[in-house]
Amino acid sequence: MSHYWSSIVNELTPYVPGEQPKLDKLIKLNTNENPYGPSPLVLDALKNEATDKLRLYPDPNSDRLKQTIADYHQISVDEVFVGNGSDEVLAHTFQALLKHDAPLLFPDITYSFYPVYCGLYQVDHKIIPLNEQFAINVEDYFQVNGGIIFPNPNAPTGKLLSIGSIECLLQENTDSVVVIDEAYIDFGGQSAIPLVNKFDNLLVIQTLSKSRSLAGLRVGFAVGNASLIEALERVKNSFNSYPLDRFAISGAVAAFEDQTYFSDTCQKILSSRKQLEAELQQLGFESIPSAANFLFTRHTEKDAAEISAALRERSIIVRHFHMPRIDQYLRITVGTAQECGALITALKDILND
Amino acid sequence: MSHYWSSIVNELTPYVPGEQPKLDKLIKLNTNENPYGPSPLVLDALKNEATDKLRLYPDPNSDRLKQTIADYHQISVDEVFVGNGSDEVLAHTFQALLKHDAPLLFPDITYSFYPVYCGLYQVDHKIIPLNEQFAINVEDYFQVNGGIIFPNPNAPTGKLLSIGSIECLLQENTDSVVVIDEAYIDFGGQSAIPLVNKFDNLLVIQTLSKSRSLAGLRVGFAVGNASLIEALERVKNSFNSYPLDRFAISGAVAAFEDQTYFSDTCQKILSSRKQLEAELQQLGFESIPSAANFLFTRHTEKDAAEISAALRERSIIVRHFHMPRIDQYLRITVGTAQECGALITALKDILND
Repeated sequence: MSHYWSSIVNELTPYVPGEQPKLDKLIKLNTNENPYGPSPLVLDALKNEATDKLRLYPDPNSDRLKQTIADYHQISVDEVFVGNGSDEVLAHTFQALLKHDAPLLFPDITYSFYPVYCGLYQVDHKIIPLNEQFAINVEDYFQVNGGIIFPNPNAPTGKLLSIGSIECLLQENTDSVVVIDEAYIDFGGQSAIPLVNKFDNLLVIQTLSKSRSLAGLRVGFAVGNASLIEALERVKNSFNSYPLDRFAISGAVAAFEDQTYFSDTCQKILSSRKQLEAELQQLGFESIPSAANFLFTRHTEKDAAEISAALRERSIIVRHFHMPRIDQYLRITVGTAQECGALITALKDILND
Repeated sequence: MSHYWSSIVNELTPYVPGEQPKLDKLIKLNTNENPYGPSPLVLDALKNEATDKLRLYPDPNSDRLKQTIADYHQISVDEVFVGNGSDEVLAHTFQALLKHDAPLLFPDITYSFYPVYCGLYQVDHKIIPLNEQFAINVEDYFQVNGGIIFPNPNAPTGKLLSIGSIECLLQENTDSVVVIDEAYIDFGGQSAIPLVNKFDNLLVIQTLSKSRSLAGLRVGFAVGNASLIEALERVKNSFNSYPLDRFAISGAVAAFEDQTYFSDTCQKILSSRKQLEAELQQLGFESIPSAANFLFTRHTEKDAAEISAALRERSIIVRHFHMPRIDQYLRITVGTAQECGALITALKDILND
């Protein structure tokens, strides 16, 4: 604290991302990265950007990437917004679309960056508890609000809300923006993007960090009615003209162009998830049905923090949240078959102790 | 405008960056990019980042880059903040350090993003006119304020304020933060970075977009007392955990490591600037003495907008600001010797018409 700080700084509780250890030998199942690297076509496109052209600014509007996303999702280019990771897109969304007199609504168990954004932009908000099965009941959101946001599938539970329920929510909630944060949608869910032409208050946010294996490149995007996108552009152009560098633009375009690689890696992860869930069950774990590239799971007997610590001693990192309702759960990223195998071996060892 | 927008969105006047035309054949002297590409060592480092590791998040704290900058400037690592271009660093600075009851002070003729940031974060501000010679008189800033910011050398004038004058300002102004925006400092100015150990309210911001030839990569940084840096980190970690992608971190580190290339390219630009200024003078232009990689110049007879339009017809783009006091000036980036030659030829042609 310092009298040089703007007053808002004293009130912030910054987000703490999952650990990014600098050791190479770890099995890293804590931040839901893809176990497979990006498409070889993406790597080629990225290498081709390392030229003298880097002396020039990138396209401030990332038009080529916006057009690629628009074509991919069969929407108009003015219905697409891009940013430096979906976290930046979310930040602009909170500032541009979710700050109103009535409170923003989001679940008690959800992406823990949401309350942080509320702090940064002083967005009044109200927490809506998930039900006993950790599901979102859309009826709980049928109340006066200045916006609604949740991930689908939800994080860190991995639980999917049906597209029918989302449509039901949109039909009921027409006076404020509904944001569906689809970071994990490609692992078995159905995207709400086709609904943007029907509901002018729907904003769908996606990332290339998970299903497109590009966490290290920082690209996210939002899709919605052109008027919602305009609000995001106005904030973006008052914040930073060039949020996406030349690598981010080219790599992201190439990622959308290699549909086969994308489908194949997603499919491999779905298979591994199925197998991992079965193997965990045999060890006495109960997992929430997951539509993401991770499992949210609890052991029927052994304490979650203890398991997490014991895994860490064996160089395997998973995520444990010290939070009400979920402190007996572990969030485990679905790794390669080999990584999942090592995890199961370690857990057997730990549970036999 | 839409009732879905947060009210702030209606009040924004977004920044308009210099044009980034998508044609290849232009001579582009409008956005102060370096005419030389980045160091070959930077390009190698960037190519080496195009690997499967992109599936993993980058280091959220960019520790390796911070350490490199700290070593380079002989300061402590907790005195360094990095961001996605100096525009992002500036944005966080406005929010974290410059919003107070008393108004922020900055010049009338300066980087035109400053009033935009004030709009985004609702920072009260007061404009202090440059003197008749377009110089900053530091005495004009000896008044109650919530912060002071200006570029040095100033943009778009290129005019340098002496380090002695900056120290004088800091001695007088101890109750608020003084931000020196040194985007162009490497082209003949003296950085205020050595003063950060003496003044705990000094923040110096630099970019790799100009003297390091990396506009396409988006890296900027701030140097200041650890307490000022902590405020920026708190805002950054409430906005986006990973603003610098893997390419940005590695490319920036490599740029600081190739000191010879950096010195050589800066020196070449200084030589070209000197020659260009002399040639412009022979054609009847009067230039402000520049410490930047551009000249701010006016013709004694011919209208600036007309010259700019005539250059554009000849595929040469320079920057013309339709603003009070400077609407008879052109801001011309110092290009390669060949580009400067083509500019002079075109100007001779235009002035002979």
